[in-house]
Amino acid sequence: MPVSKSSIAFSVLAIATLLFAPLTNAMGDHNPPLRSWANGASTQRIVEFVDRVTDVDSPDYLPPTERVAVFDNDGTLWAEQPAYFQVLFAADVARERLRENPELAEDPDYKTFSEGGLKAVAAGGHEALFQLVFASHTGVSNADFQQSVRRWLDSARHPKTEKRYDAMVYQPMLELLHYLREHEFSTWIVSGGGVSFMRVWTEEVYGIPPQQVIGSRVHMRYEETGDGPRLMREAAISHVNDGPGKPVGIQQVIGKRPVLAVGNSDGDFEMLRWTTASSPSLGVLIHHTDDEREWAYDRDSAIGHLERGLDEAPGRGWVVVDMKADWKRVFAAH
Amino acid sequence: MPVSKSSIAFSVLAIATLLFAPLTNAMGDHNPPLRSWANGASTQRIVEFVDRVTDVDSPDYLPPTERVAVFDNDGTLWAEQPAYFQVLFAADVARERLRENPELAEDPDYKTFSEGGLKAVAAGGHEALFQLVFASHTGVSNADFQQSVRRWLDSARHPKTEKRYDAMVYQPMLELLHYLREHEFSTWIVSGGGVSFMRVWTEEVYGIPPQQVIGSRVHMRYEETGDGPRLMREAAISHVNDGPGKPVGIQQVIGKRPVLAVGNSDGDFEMLRWTTASSPSLGVLIHHTDDEREWAYDRDSAIGHLERGLDEAPGRGWVVVDMKADWKRVFAAH
Repeated sequence: MPVSKSSIAFSVLAIATLLFAPLTNAMGDHNPPLRSWANGASTQRIVEFVDRVTDVDSPDYLPPTERVAVFDNDGTLWAEQPAYFQVLFAADVARERLRENPELAEDPDYKTFSEGGLKAVAAGGHEALFQLVFASHTGVSNADFQQSVRRWLDSARHPKTEKRYDAMVYQPMLELLHYLREHEFSTWIVSGGGVSFMRVWTEEVYGIPPQQVIGSRVHMRYEETGDGPRLMREAAISHVNDGPGKPVGIQQVIGKRPVLAVGNSDGDFEMLRWTTASSPSLGVLIHHTDDEREWAYDRDSAIGHLERGLDEAPGRGWVVVDMKADWKRVFAAH
Repeated sequence: MPVSKSSIAFSVLAIATLLFAPLTNAMGDHNPPLRSWANGASTQRIVEFVDRVTDVDSPDYLPPTERVAVFDNDGTLWAEQPAYFQVLFAADVARERLRENPELAEDPDYKTFSEGGLKAVAAGGHEALFQLVFASHTGVSNADFQQSVRRWLDSARHPKTEKRYDAMVYQPMLELLHYLREHEFSTWIVSGGGVSFMRVWTEEVYGIPPQQVIGSRVHMRYEETGDGPRLMREAAISHVNDGPGKPVGIQQVIGKRPVLAVGNSDGDFEMLRWTTASSPSLGVLIHHTDDEREWAYDRDSAIGHLERGLDEAPGRGWVVVDMKADWKRVFAAH
């Protein structure tokens, strides 16, 4: 077989690719793992951190068991406007229950919502929110509850984008999760959202299995029935996994301190603080700056309120990701 | 090179070994994974279950993500006589605190113990036990608490065997844990014991990492200090992971139903019931029948009380392991 110049050139290229492949960094590959991230300072600092803790010759090397990465969910992995998606689910369920049993309108757990809708709930603070959660998330077995979440996901659509809610996940974050797992990090969700609500879809959407989802919880009661045992969801809050509750939830479930924490609001402040109080570590805040492709909000927003985090990030060395500048693409393609 | 008869025989043997190796079961290997288990019905049923759910051609095949195996700790993985080892730890800590601050003797959390010792605590039921836990396990950061557990483990010795407490683990159970992991099961502890107490040593002793340990919990509070953030242990029970609390703890942390559950007392009844209410599944009870090598106790014992489990195991198809007959060896060599 004659050997052409082009086949020699091809061979040289192939050999060079093989030789230098281990040296190309996350952004230099032909099929880069962080392809939706612009090549700016934020991206570089994340890649530099991963390189540093996975390089056996680095003084900051961490064995895989220590590579624990925690992610907030609402506003960090998927969108959270015009309201937390779980609250929109709760409203849909409460409306359906009220339609089926109109007398529930006088029940204390339904009263605020049935009279004033989501606006009244939002104005009523934590107490009104917990009532709506009780009205929509309890009094059923956990298995039945999770089936209702699945049905809702398959039928509900976002009021602005008309997408499925589980399609409103951020493509750059999917890439970051994948990139970290490729580097033997374990990836965890640490969210103020309900743990049983999230577990229905986190494995399929994010590749994060149920046992790596930490969230808020209602009480559960084991009971025997004629059909066998079941776990009933009760109208009492067992853990609020927000703010200072996040390091507590992390300790309860993981039992060790993460080395990478990513959030987007002041509800993530303590999680980033706890993570970065030890070294090596990295804290990352996703800053919602893109009013065209998504929503722009921070200091003045009730949902995703971000103020202390922006003020303290520079002094604490936390990376602030500017969605508009740092993300080439926002939502995942589906 | 001349070929001798013996080298031919050796080759035939080597080839036969290679050919038939996949067919030998767990007990037929030269270095059998369950070598401390007698070849009786209990062992066979466990091996048969593992073979069945890991054989891709079996109708009961389970993918590795579904192979969740849960183990009680006290009396199942390590001994629990003459008292739960964590209670002996609590008594040692409370005694030390009373020595340092004699005025604590009047504190409600210390009163029962300081006046009547462990006997009075045992007679006082749950309330007295919780008081002793508060007196010994709270009012400190979780990091300091775990250091005190480590110091105790390194200095305390069991009153009867004079072994380290973490040496009083059952060799057959270490082999079973290893055997299951070799077959891509994830192995979890689901214990009434305190989660932070166990996590200090479970990875080293059982190969079970912190995030796979589920236990009882006290409240934790996040606080900022001049030295940074810390998690303080508070005098309030947040979850009692015993009896009906075990399926609840499993759902909260793992988020899916196990397929294999191993326990030794009626505190494990609901865990076995919950696990075996779905199929394929297996429930196993370790029955303490060996008064020479360990302790013999069941229906009349306060610690490790086993009555309903023994009564219902045959009807429910649960395996009852007879420690005396089924275990060739009890404690691990150290």
